[in-house]
Amino acid sequence: MSAMERLVQEFSRLPGVGPKTAVRMVFHLLKRPPEEALRLARALEDLTRKIHPCRECGNFTEDELCSVCGDPSRDRGLLCVVEEAFDVGAIERAGRYRGVYHVLGGRLSPLDGIGPEQLGVERLLARVVGGGIREVILATNASVEGEATAVFLEGLLRPLGPRVTRLARGIPVGSDLEYVDGSTIAEALEGRREM
Amino acid sequence: MSAMERLVQEFSRLPGVGPKTAVRMVFHLLKRPPEEALRLARALEDLTRKIHPCRECGNFTEDELCSVCGDPSRDRGLLCVVEEAFDVGAIERAGRYRGVYHVLGGRLSPLDGIGPEQLGVERLLARVVGGGIREVILATNASVEGEATAVFLEGLLRPLGPRVTRLARGIPVGSDLEYVDGSTIAEALEGRREM
Repeated sequence: MSAMERLVQEFSRLPGVGPKTAVRMVFHLLKRPPEEALRLARALEDLTRKIHPCRECGNFTEDELCSVCGDPSRDRGLLCVVEEAFDVGAIERAGRYRGVYHVLGGRLSPLDGIGPEQLGVERLLARVVGGGIREVILATNASVEGEATAVFLEGLLRPLGPRVTRLARGIPVGSDLEYVDGSTIAEALEGRREM
Repeated sequence: MSAMERLVQEFSRLPGVGPKTAVRMVFHLLKRPPEEALRLARALEDLTRKIHPCRECGNFTEDELCSVCGDPSRDRGLLCVVEEAFDVGAIERAGRYRGVYHVLGGRLSPLDGIGPEQLGVERLLARVVGGGIREVILATNASVEGEATAVFLEGLLRPLGPRVTRLARGIPVGSDLEYVDGSTIAEALEGRREM
């Protein structure tokens, strides 16, 4: 396989990149000064060398603790459980949450062989048993698997004492009812609040 | 800047990759074994080291001559002039062309400072003056700049003797007239052929 074909193949493994896009990327790099491809290569090597999971929560970091766990002003009594490290970014960008996180690294998915052990559920339970956590917010995705994961975790967490909550379901801000699916509307009705 | 931010920035330079896609790519790689990112890094380095323009036509190759110029069965009397190396691939995939190529590496674009010197037009003329070329097919893009480039080249090439042609304009195969723009229909009428 030629160097071009090999790079096309490697680019194609990235999410959202089909073979045609991969070819465009390769030709783009061939038109640019070689430093550009080398800078990308260098950044990839750095990623594998420097980034690892936060010792505390599993979020990605270059240090021992991630920026959230390393921030003394965060409320350690409030623990938000998410599926993936990028979910931490999504919640942080919303700018409302002042607690800490726990990254599962996936969701229960028996068909893919992902059970409680693969998700390191024991590590989560150990954190809660460790004490001081008033509330666990289960912020797994609103998908079938995310929901199943939340229900499973709730069964384990509730007996340990903390309040166990999940994110509200409802109409996304800014959307027209006309385009919202029926199950979301049903959830929004169910969860309706006094004005 | 952290290793993650730097890689997001480098990915964002690729065509068709916005900041959000770049973030997804980085998180994808962080979930995979590090070998995957390193294989991509290696492929990028290989690209810059091994790939260079074909001595004859300017197409990209790992050898001295590209696969077309190195093929003794190709008709050296027929020269197809394209803007970019990836246009060679597009024509080759069509499977009908048996001549050789000349890659300009761009199109005339005075606003971007791309004139005849930047395109190496002299190298093209030298090939034609060198003799043995019966026909030059100007296969620049059907854009305003591609068209201007073809007209400019035709003016230089015709006095040298070879037949100078360009790709037919017309209705793309498989498309409904309803969705074809007016100038294409006008060109198709202009170029209509006996059945």
